[in-house]
Amino acid sequence: MNDAERWRELGQQLRVDSIRAAAVTKSGHPTSSMSAADLMAVLLSKYLHYDFDAPDDPHNDHLIFSKGHASPLLYSMYRAAGAISVDELLTFRKFGSRLEGHPTPEIPWVDVATGSLGQGLPYGVGIALAGKRLDRLPYRVWVLCGDSEMAEGSMWEAFEHAAFYELDNLTAIIDVNRLGQRGVTMHGWDLDSYADRARAFGWHAIEIEGHDVEAIDQAYAEAASTTSQPTVVIARTIKGKGVKEVEDKEGWHGKALDDPDGAIEELGGVRNIIVEVAKPDEIGEPHRFEVSGSLELPTWEVGDDVATRRAYGDALVALGSARGDVVALDGEVSNSTFAEIFRDAHPDRYFEMYIAEQQLVAAAVGLQVRKWVPFGSSFAAFFSRAYDFIRMAAISRANIRLCGSHAGVSIGEDGPSQMALEDLAMMRAVHGSTVLYPCDANQTAKLVAEMADREGIIFMRTTRANTPVIYGSDEEFPIGGSGVLREGDDVTIVAAGITLHESLKAADELSGEGISARVIDLYSVKPADGETLRAAAEATGGRILTVEDHWPEGGIGDAVLEALSDGETPARVVRLAVRDMPGSGKPAELLAAAGIDAEHIAEAARSLVGATITTR
Amino acid sequence: MNDAERWRELGQQLRVDSIRAAAVTKSGHPTSSMSAADLMAVLLSKYLHYDFDAPDDPHNDHLIFSKGHASPLLYSMYRAAGAISVDELLTFRKFGSRLEGHPTPEIPWVDVATGSLGQGLPYGVGIALAGKRLDRLPYRVWVLCGDSEMAEGSMWEAFEHAAFYELDNLTAIIDVNRLGQRGVTMHGWDLDSYADRARAFGWHAIEIEGHDVEAIDQAYAEAASTTSQPTVVIARTIKGKGVKEVEDKEGWHGKALDDPDGAIEELGGVRNIIVEVAKPDEIGEPHRFEVSGSLELPTWEVGDDVATRRAYGDALVALGSARGDVVALDGEVSNSTFAEIFRDAHPDRYFEMYIAEQQLVAAAVGLQVRKWVPFGSSFAAFFSRAYDFIRMAAISRANIRLCGSHAGVSIGEDGPSQMALEDLAMMRAVHGSTVLYPCDANQTAKLVAEMADREGIIFMRTTRANTPVIYGSDEEFPIGGSGVLREGDDVTIVAAGITLHESLKAADELSGEGISARVIDLYSVKPADGETLRAAAEATGGRILTVEDHWPEGGIGDAVLEALSDGETPARVVRLAVRDMPGSGKPAELLAAAGIDAEHIAEAARSLVGATITTR
Repeated sequence: MNDAERWRELGQQLRVDSIRAAAVTKSGHPTSSMSAADLMAVLLSKYLHYDFDAPDDPHNDHLIFSKGHASPLLYSMYRAAGAISVDELLTFRKFGSRLEGHPTPEIPWVDVATGSLGQGLPYGVGIALAGKRLDRLPYRVWVLCGDSEMAEGSMWEAFEHAAFYELDNLTAIIDVNRLGQRGVTMHGWDLDSYADRARAFGWHAIEIEGHDVEAIDQAYAEAASTTSQPTVVIARTIKGKGVKEVEDKEGWHGKALDDPDGAIEELGGVRNIIVEVAKPDEIGEPHRFEVSGSLELPTWEVGDDVATRRAYGDALVALGSARGDVVALDGEVSNSTFAEIFRDAHPDRYFEMYIAEQQLVAAAVGLQVRKWVPFGSSFAAFFSRAYDFIRMAAISRANIRLCGSHAGVSIGEDGPSQMALEDLAMMRAVHGSTVLYPCDANQTAKLVAEMADREGIIFMRTTRANTPVIYGSDEEFPIGGSGVLREGDDVTIVAAGITLHESLKAADELSGEGISARVIDLYSVKPADGETLRAAAEATGGRILTVEDHWPEGGIGDAVLEALSDGETPARVVRLAVRDMPGSGKPAELLAAAGIDAEHIAEAARSLVGATITTR
Repeated sequence: MNDAERWRELGQQLRVDSIRAAAVTKSGHPTSSMSAADLMAVLLSKYLHYDFDAPDDPHNDHLIFSKGHASPLLYSMYRAAGAISVDELLTFRKFGSRLEGHPTPEIPWVDVATGSLGQGLPYGVGIALAGKRLDRLPYRVWVLCGDSEMAEGSMWEAFEHAAFYELDNLTAIIDVNRLGQRGVTMHGWDLDSYADRARAFGWHAIEIEGHDVEAIDQAYAEAASTTSQPTVVIARTIKGKGVKEVEDKEGWHGKALDDPDGAIEELGGVRNIIVEVAKPDEIGEPHRFEVSGSLELPTWEVGDDVATRRAYGDALVALGSARGDVVALDGEVSNSTFAEIFRDAHPDRYFEMYIAEQQLVAAAVGLQVRKWVPFGSSFAAFFSRAYDFIRMAAISRANIRLCGSHAGVSIGEDGPSQMALEDLAMMRAVHGSTVLYPCDANQTAKLVAEMADREGIIFMRTTRANTPVIYGSDEEFPIGGSGVLREGDDVTIVAAGITLHESLKAADELSGEGISARVIDLYSVKPADGETLRAAAEATGGRILTVEDHWPEGGIGDAVLEALSDGETPARVVRLAVRDMPGSGKPAELLAAAGIDAEHIAEAARSLVGATITTR
């Protein structure tokens, strides 16, 4: 058997195995897998350089299924590579199996979770950036894409960035089987449509018959030898290829075949080909950046006036000077988020992502696949643009750090489009996330340092305006802790960030009236310091005031309510938050209009203290 | 003075006025406004057909500033049109002024809020779709775009859809001033880069010098007479044009000029040109679709087994048969969301948006600008892709209805990428939103009908699996209400959707053990029925169990805590929710693993009843 015959046979095996897998729970996407089988057979047999016994080997190529629903095909490839057994293949989609409906990194050979379309290629851009600019190793990133998902704007962010950064180590393969979930895609089999777009975006594009294994072989060879630009192989394929009943038929997306045994027979039966996947050359080691090794965080004097967004920038550059694995990304606002300070000091480890927040977050996820420690920044409001990527990053068990600046109405005149008022809610609802909201520069710096090695998705919210430094530079701020800044027995005020300062002003005013307010700085919104909150509720007769520059739902108020929900601690919680849509204005005017400035906090505290609480 | 001279003079006036506006609060984006002044001068003088005295006239053109930060220019145009006075112009960015930092529909001539880049063109696609397919009127949609924002993937979703739908009534104008916020854009002044991309995406593209008013005139004439495809005018411009100190200089983005008086003098001084903006032809009326006029919602029998996602589809088509203003959009999953039923019955009022959720939501916002009543659907998880558009839709005071299906772990084998577990949190945190989560088909149908005329952003969460019909078809479900499905005094269980059924099973089991559980169906998650919740807490000794197929943060648990936070109602709230990252499995297996099935609910209820609560 020559190469081509072997590849065709392997392609048939991948089809057979995809059908077998889907038959287990009678669910999955076999027809979407069958169209790409030949594309993957050639890749696995000849082009992928991957050691399945050493998934963490930095020299490995990377394979991402952007069309994550073709997971039966991916798992069939693992079987063909000898990495999993047939028995395991046949646990597909079963409870407890690591072979889930869509791939996740619970499987050692999967870098990133996919399944939400239009994401795999942006992740691939991140890994390719790591390969070219950080690791400086020649591994290749292969991304199998569907044609339907080319409608996602995020794919075009990926196309733009890959060309701009000359990622010739990235190869996209589009499985153009013309049928989406519901029906025909916008372009059907018009390969030129895709190729024209790709070329306009600066890619090299090769159009082929996707079941012609020799054409596939030539295309991959050409892609692997094209320099200065990434390549996309646009392959005309047939959904459900190989089984007449479903070939190119609408209505078979996401359905197991009715007659798997008949289909397998039609495909020539079960095979047992094991492919010797080429291992990568072990030449070179991941590049290491020269650094001092000792972290010297910036410090400020109590009483200084500094914006926490500025402190983020100053702390990040210090972190970058101490640790060569720390990298930064920003979305065209680095002069506002102060990521520019890191950029200027460590240009080799900074990535300008322009106005493309989805690609920014995806690149961060890709970079951490290769063990780099990414800090991504933008306005907090604009991270909402990337929420599906943040959601999926949790499924990827990714470790990324995001800093969102310009939180709340306190940004002032720019108005609501630039104000983050839902970011705490958004980020609290991310699985395993950490949500931090510092109020001063020293606290910010310490928290930035803590973000570096913490697992999961860590979000820090920073403020545009200058705020006074109230903590000494020797203070520590454990995540999950809080600061009790004023002691008191009459009422508890819980705040963070800019409203923490307003709360202190209010407390000091109240103290003059004989009302002692305990002020808690909830800089760690998630995890929240339940112990301190419950003790405060106890000590202040259950009178709690929460204050946040954020909508009422999902933020500090909810975090406090959650901590007090155990029934041991009766409380009346009054939640001050932004309730009306803000407009433009000076920060002080907007804080007052939202009822979250010192005056309104004091007023609410007086009411609470004066009110009767049923439980006392 | 001939036309060209008049246009140049107007352009200068628009520059002068932009500088004057920004000088008021010493904030704003004058240089971003100055680059587009000539483009807008010609548009306002000759091409825009708009009656400023009748902003709701359906024949009006539409002008959107996708580069919303160029608001000084937009407001200067209003001044030049005689729509606002100079005095009002000089309230720019001041507290209480409707001339906010970025435009919002608080201003009658603004259709949609912009300021988050990459959004204006997608909104324009929505309005253009309305013009071509629904209103069937010849108004034109003009969208002024920045070059930086071309990096946003959503712009390419707009480009794709505009060409696919042959929106020759849409004209985009790209102000290529080569400087973003932080520095040079990816393409600088390489107009071909943008033109190549636009042409590849099926648009007609015209490249011009953006300060040559005669070239602008020719380009607009060509755009307005091009048929079958949209046109983009790509204009080479100079940021800060007209004032040497800032012309084409980095570092001036978002800054008021240091010496506004000197700049105004350099520009030739203040002018007082008032433009007679052409009014639209009053030919034709908005098309009206023939309908029955009387709503006949589908009904089911108690005991039937029906998925609420299916009921959505059945109810939507009924609504569409009764009301000709109801339109539907879906993102390539209409066979899963059941929007396909509407599509098949009312194809003229259905828009396939393919896999492009940002454009889907934006189109819905655009359609409602023209008073259509859009219902958009996709998997609930994928609406996270459009969260920035949803956030901005609230600032647009838009009335849109979104239905997200496939909520929670109960979708089964597809796994977490397809499961919405944060959608309740996400949507609760949207200003003025309504969040609905029906548990059965009759309830779904009634709620769909109520969504039609409710203001704001209304989100309905539906379930993949069949669930029993428990409500009669004559029941009513007021938004803000709840259903008390079991009476009881020992413990309250609050749930919705699929966990409501699990709660009923649990309650019936507990009742056999002598524990009477009150079961509340919180189908209206926001606004939540605080009164019923507080009464239940009172009646059941403060023992509350919430159960949701959702992460713990931001959903039903938080909604209940919020309702009980007034301190009048001591409660111990135990929140059952999904806490570990789910995998694949049968729905029943996944519900059990997440601890939110009947068995675990009963167990938690027993614990609660057995536990001592401090307040009793």
